[in-house]
This record gives sequence, structure tokens and C-alpha cells, in this order.
Amino acid sequence: MKVMIMGMDGYLGWTLSMHLAARGHDVSGVDNFSRRRNVEEIGSWSATPIKTMEQRLKAYKKATGKELRFYEGDLTDPEFAEQVIKKDKPDTIVHLGEIPSAPYSMIDVKHCNYTQTNNIVGTNNILFAIHRHAPDSHLLKLGTMGEYGTPNVDIPEGFFEIEYRGRRERLPFPRQPGSWYHLSKVHDTHNIMFACKIWGLRSTDIMQGVVHGVKTDDMVNDDLLTRFDFDEAFGTALNRFCAQAIIGQELTPYGKGGQTRGYIALRDSMQCLTIAAENPPEKGEYRVFNQFDECYSVNQLAEHVVKVAGELGVKTKIWGIENPRVEAEEHYYKPDREKLPALGFKPTYSLDDELRVTIPTLALFKERIEAKKEHIKPTIYWRR
Amino acid sequence: MKVMIMGMDGYLGWTLSMHLAARGHDVSGVDNFSRRRNVEEIGSWSATPIKTMEQRLKAYKKATGKELRFYEGDLTDPEFAEQVIKKDKPDTIVHLGEIPSAPYSMIDVKHCNYTQTNNIVGTNNILFAIHRHAPDSHLLKLGTMGEYGTPNVDIPEGFFEIEYRGRRERLPFPRQPGSWYHLSKVHDTHNIMFACKIWGLRSTDIMQGVVHGVKTDDMVNDDLLTRFDFDEAFGTALNRFCAQAIIGQELTPYGKGGQTRGYIALRDSMQCLTIAAENPPEKGEYRVFNQFDECYSVNQLAEHVVKVAGELGVKTKIWGIENPRVEAEEHYYKPDREKLPALGFKPTYSLDDELRVTIPTLALFKERIEAKKEHIKPTIYWRR
Repeated sequence: MKVMIMGMDGYLGWTLSMHLAARGHDVSGVDNFSRRRNVEEIGSWSATPIKTMEQRLKAYKKATGKELRFYEGDLTDPEFAEQVIKKDKPDTIVHLGEIPSAPYSMIDVKHCNYTQTNNIVGTNNILFAIHRHAPDSHLLKLGTMGEYGTPNVDIPEGFFEIEYRGRRERLPFPRQPGSWYHLSKVHDTHNIMFACKIWGLRSTDIMQGVVHGVKTDDMVNDDLLTRFDFDEAFGTALNRFCAQAIIGQELTPYGKGGQTRGYIALRDSMQCLTIAAENPPEKGEYRVFNQFDECYSVNQLAEHVVKVAGELGVKTKIWGIENPRVEAEEHYYKPDREKLPALGFKPTYSLDDELRVTIPTLALFKERIEAKKEHIKPTIYWRR
Repeated sequence: MKVMIMGMDGYLGWTLSMHLAARGHDVSGVDNFSRRRNVEEIGSWSATPIKTMEQRLKAYKKATGKELRFYEGDLTDPEFAEQVIKKDKPDTIVHLGEIPSAPYSMIDVKHCNYTQTNNIVGTNNILFAIHRHAPDSHLLKLGTMGEYGTPNVDIPEGFFEIEYRGRRERLPFPRQPGSWYHLSKVHDTHNIMFACKIWGLRSTDIMQGVVHGVKTDDMVNDDLLTRFDFDEAFGTALNRFCAQAIIGQELTPYGKGGQTRGYIALRDSMQCLTIAAENPPEKGEYRVFNQFDECYSVNQLAEHVVKVAGELGVKTKIWGIENPRVEAEEHYYKPDREKLPALGFKPTYSLDDELRVTIPTLALFKERIEAKKEHIKPTIYWRR
């Protein structure tokens, strides 16, 4: 299979590139390095000392003998998107090339507009380029479980069948996202659904839970590490807790800490994305996978970090702080996840399993976390 | 009431400015004249020979003694949006300042992105400016009934209460729009709902049916006419049928012609927008009004035009053509409209009543329609 990975330089993009190449797929990738710039803008960096793309490609070839092709450019330029898709005509396009941060999008109007236009225009350009130059390609697009929000009913996988005033219909499940960033993913979802309908494209829209972990088997040396963000904008709650544990800061869940989300280990995310890529939908089909393994509240996450850090001899404690976000802090949460298991997905790493790899790996880079520790606690508030 | 009308130079914007000023409100407006440029780009023009904004403002003052304030600028510039809202601090902002054409958005990737970014960024900038400088303002935003698509169940006003797997919840009604333009309105809807939630803004999101008509009582002379588009991109089916009748072209419904939508006369649209403006929602409330009067299929529209044109001595006939769009040509359609009538809306002009004003008015400008008649029939196809 010929795969093109949009956002190859990112946390998932780099990891997935190596994972798919190791399975024998022909892998190319695209990036404009905006993630590196955006994290730098916040004042932070990756805990893992990641290499430049040039160094990564060389190191990967040296370690495995395999080549990854890379095209530097910006997907918000329609000519660039067209050019790379026309050149490679990939069977599968994995679109991870978006700005992924809720707090970053909430900084101010410019960051809101930058996040929304970057994500929407990039995706639109890919859709048009597929339609024109690779109409059989499978667009495997990264959305987020956050698109659904926290409704008081079960969350199906994208669509639900309901009865309303005596008539039945299958409808898209309503989306109630919680940040300008999450909204951009909802906008993508609607745009992609429409493109599949009018042009007969095929797409899998992945509603992914929070991914955690930093290492996979492909990272055989430090030159091949993927990034790990721990700042308030690009670091997830779990990433921040791990970083805090390592430098001896108290773990800081926001608000009551009952905010519950789906989680998946990095290695299981790779498994899921591979399954989705290797089992494409029919032409014209727009399908949605909820991609997560376990559900945890923020308080439970913190407790797991305390426990696993403790096993590793690191003592830490929890100190809840004011919630900078606007979100339900106690709520019903029951999302389906049936489609990926039906295609063969078997979760292999629990939260604790993955933490037992993540915390010692990060501990090697303790000074890098120390150096940027003032960027862990929140300064971006939803209401301001 | 101090009202600021975004898109003052447009079809509804100019009409509403005069209507609200006549009711004694203090009216200002904003426009970047993109509608004039975009219609010119298609190669067409307004059937009515509209004046420049400078001439309009002078003519209005001469006719009524009243002044309308006008600010030229682009709402996609956040500083400009902030500046005008900070200066005027309006009680109500009527946001009509978007690119309104489905076919225009379907031309190619650039027109898709232009429409989506223009509409989304303009609305975001208004939301941020309201939050910062006029947090009590009421944002009265023009959406479209087209956001809902044509589901096989009744269409409520924005939200519905359902039972799903034994639990009940009030959810946003799912949106299934049919063009990049309609999608941009759905994106706005989600963005505005979120802003109301996190910042306590108040907004009325108008899901408006197709507006028809060209004259109101405020247009006491030709210098005060509003625009009337009849080209394939900016002219609605009904507008195109009226134009075709006047120049003796056959009326050309697309496909089977069973596509059914809600319609409202221009004068009744003014009544509804006024009611919504004069009855603002509570702080933090995001409400949705379905704003239309009657439902018709495209074939029924054509038949009404044939009938009314016949009464006026104009003979014409119907000649269905291939549908350039991707849409259901026969479908269930039953949208609610209860909220505006509950606030006092009483429809006063039926489709035929309004056609009896529109057709003779347009007949005065027959040469202008003749001159651009090659732009009436479709050249923009959804599938290409």
C-alpha cells in the first residue's frame, strides 16, 4: 500500500510513518513544521530531544535500510496539496496535519482563526486534490472524541438511528465541541461527509481519544524518538502529570477532576490506524470510528500517575487547581467503540502498562522538562 | 435601539437598514462590497440598477431626512471588526455580511476556501469583538434553512429532545447541508453556539428560507432599490424564473423539480428580522428561529411564475434541465416554524402577492436582464 502521511513530523505522524514502513508499506509524508513553531511560540519544547526531519530520515534509513519520502510544504496552499497527491497518487492518505491544541486556539482571535482556517483549508485542499488526482484514495482523517462533547446519552460512532415524532431516520450524531480547535475538527467532519457524498470519495473519520505514551518498537535509538509535549497548550493532562511527577511538581487536575474522556496507548493507536488503513471503506462511504480503549476521569489519571511513579520510586501528590476551561466537571460518558474491535483491534497496553514505559523514558530527559517547567500550569482561560 | 448591520450593501442589508431606520432605530452598517465584486466576477449584475453606497446614503437622507452611518471595511480583519463594534457599541448586530451563494462556493477549491474562510473568520471576529467591547449586544445572525438539508423527519428549530437507548437529552438537530457555502453556515452555527456558552453572549441564529421579492415601502424612488440577482450563482431559482419569464426564456427547474424548500417574501423577512431584533434573547442564550412562510417545490415555483406572469400578459413555459447539483429531488420536508409567530409574526404576502410586485418591477429593467441572459443557465456542476 502506498501511504502518504500529512503531518509526518508530528507526534503521531512520525510514529506512524515508521510503523507502516516496518509493515512493508510504501510511505511518504508532508509537513510544514508548524507544530515545532507553535510549541516554540508558547515558550516550550518537546521533552524528548527530537531530531530535524533530515536527521530523522537519515537515522531511519541507517537503522532499517528503508527510505521514507518527505515533501516540505503547507497544505493550506491548494497547489501544494494538489502537487504532492498528483505526484504520489497514494492509496491511503492519513491526515494528521492539523493544529491539535484546544488551549492554543483559545489564546485570542488570531489563534482561533489560525487554527480554524489552517485545519479547514488544509482538509478542503486535500479533498479537492483527491477528487481530481486520486479519486480512489482512502482519506484516513484524524478527528477527536472531543467533537461529541459530553452529552447525557450514549455516544455512537458518528451516526445514530432515532425516532422523532413517529418517523425513523439515521442522522449524524450532534457535535458539541468545547474549544475553537475542537470546532475546527467538527467543521472538517461536515466538509468530509459532504465530499464523500458528492464526489464518491472514501473516508474514515477517526474520533480518537487522548493518546498517551512516547515509545514504540520502531524507536530503536534516540534519533528516532517522537515528540512529547508537556506545556499547557500542547501537552495533554496526562502528559503534564507525567512531566510534573518527574520534576517533583504536584499534579494539577483542573476543577473537580470528574471530566471523563477516552484514552488509548500510542502503540494501540498505531494498531488502530493501521487496521483502518488496511481495511478501507467502499467508494462513496464516509465512516466514523471511535478510537479509544479505556475511559478515565482527570482525577483517575492523576491517581494512576501517582501510583506508577510511586512504583518507580518517584513520590508525588495531587493538588487540584481552578479550571481554566469551560466544561462539565461531572457528567455522563458512555461512548461506543465497536467498529475497530470488529476489524480485529485488540488493546494491548493499559494506562498503567504505558505509564511504566513513559515515565522512565521521560525521566531520561528530566532537565529538558525542568528547563520549561513554568509552561506547565495554565495561563490560557476560556472565559477571558 | 442602536443596530449595526453587517453587509449593509447587500440584498437584505440595504432593505433592512431602511426598514429599521423608518421604525426609529439608530442604524449603522458595514460592508466591503464583496457581493458587487463577486457577481461581477461571474459576469453578471443586479437586474435593478443599484446605486453606490455613497449615492444610497444621500438619496435616503434626501427622501427621509434620516442618516445612516456607514463604515467600509472587511470583517475578516479582526482589528476592523473590533474597531467598529468598539466605536458604536450597538445593542443589536445583524450579521448579513457573508458570501451567500452555493454555486459560487462550488466553482473550485479557491471559491470553496474563499467562501468558508470569509464567512467563518468574519463571524469569529464579530464574536470576539462583541465579547470584548459590547458583551450585552444581541447577535442576530443570518443562517439558512439549507443547514438542515432534507432529513426524513420533521425539522425542529435548532434543537430537539430525543430518547436514545433509554436516556433523554436535548441536542442540536444534526445538520446535513448541501454545498460548501451551506457548510460555512453550519460552521458558523457551531462557533456561535460555543461563544454563547463560554462567554454568555446572546444570539439569535436565523435559519431563513429563500427570500423573494425586490420592493418594500421604503424604496420610494429608484435610487433606493435593493439588488436583485438572477445569474446562476447569486440568483435563487425563483429569481431566475422571474428573469426568464421577463425575457421570454423557458423556465428551467433542475432535475425532477421536487426539491422543496421554505420561502418568505422580502417584506415578511423584514418583519421577522425586526421582531427578532426587538425581542432579544437572554444573556447566554443561543436560540434558533426557522424563518419562512410557505413551502414549495421548484416545480411549484415555476408554475406560480407562469401563472402570475400570465396574469400580467407575459406568456412563458417550463423546460426542466439536468440538475447540476447533488440533492434529493423528491423528499420529505416538514420544518417547524413556531417561534416567530409566537412573537407576533404574521405573514402578509403570499408567493403570488409578492410575484405580482416583483415581475412588474423587474420588467422595467428588462434590458439589463437581456444583457446578461447567458449567465442564467447553469455552468457550475457539483460533481466536477
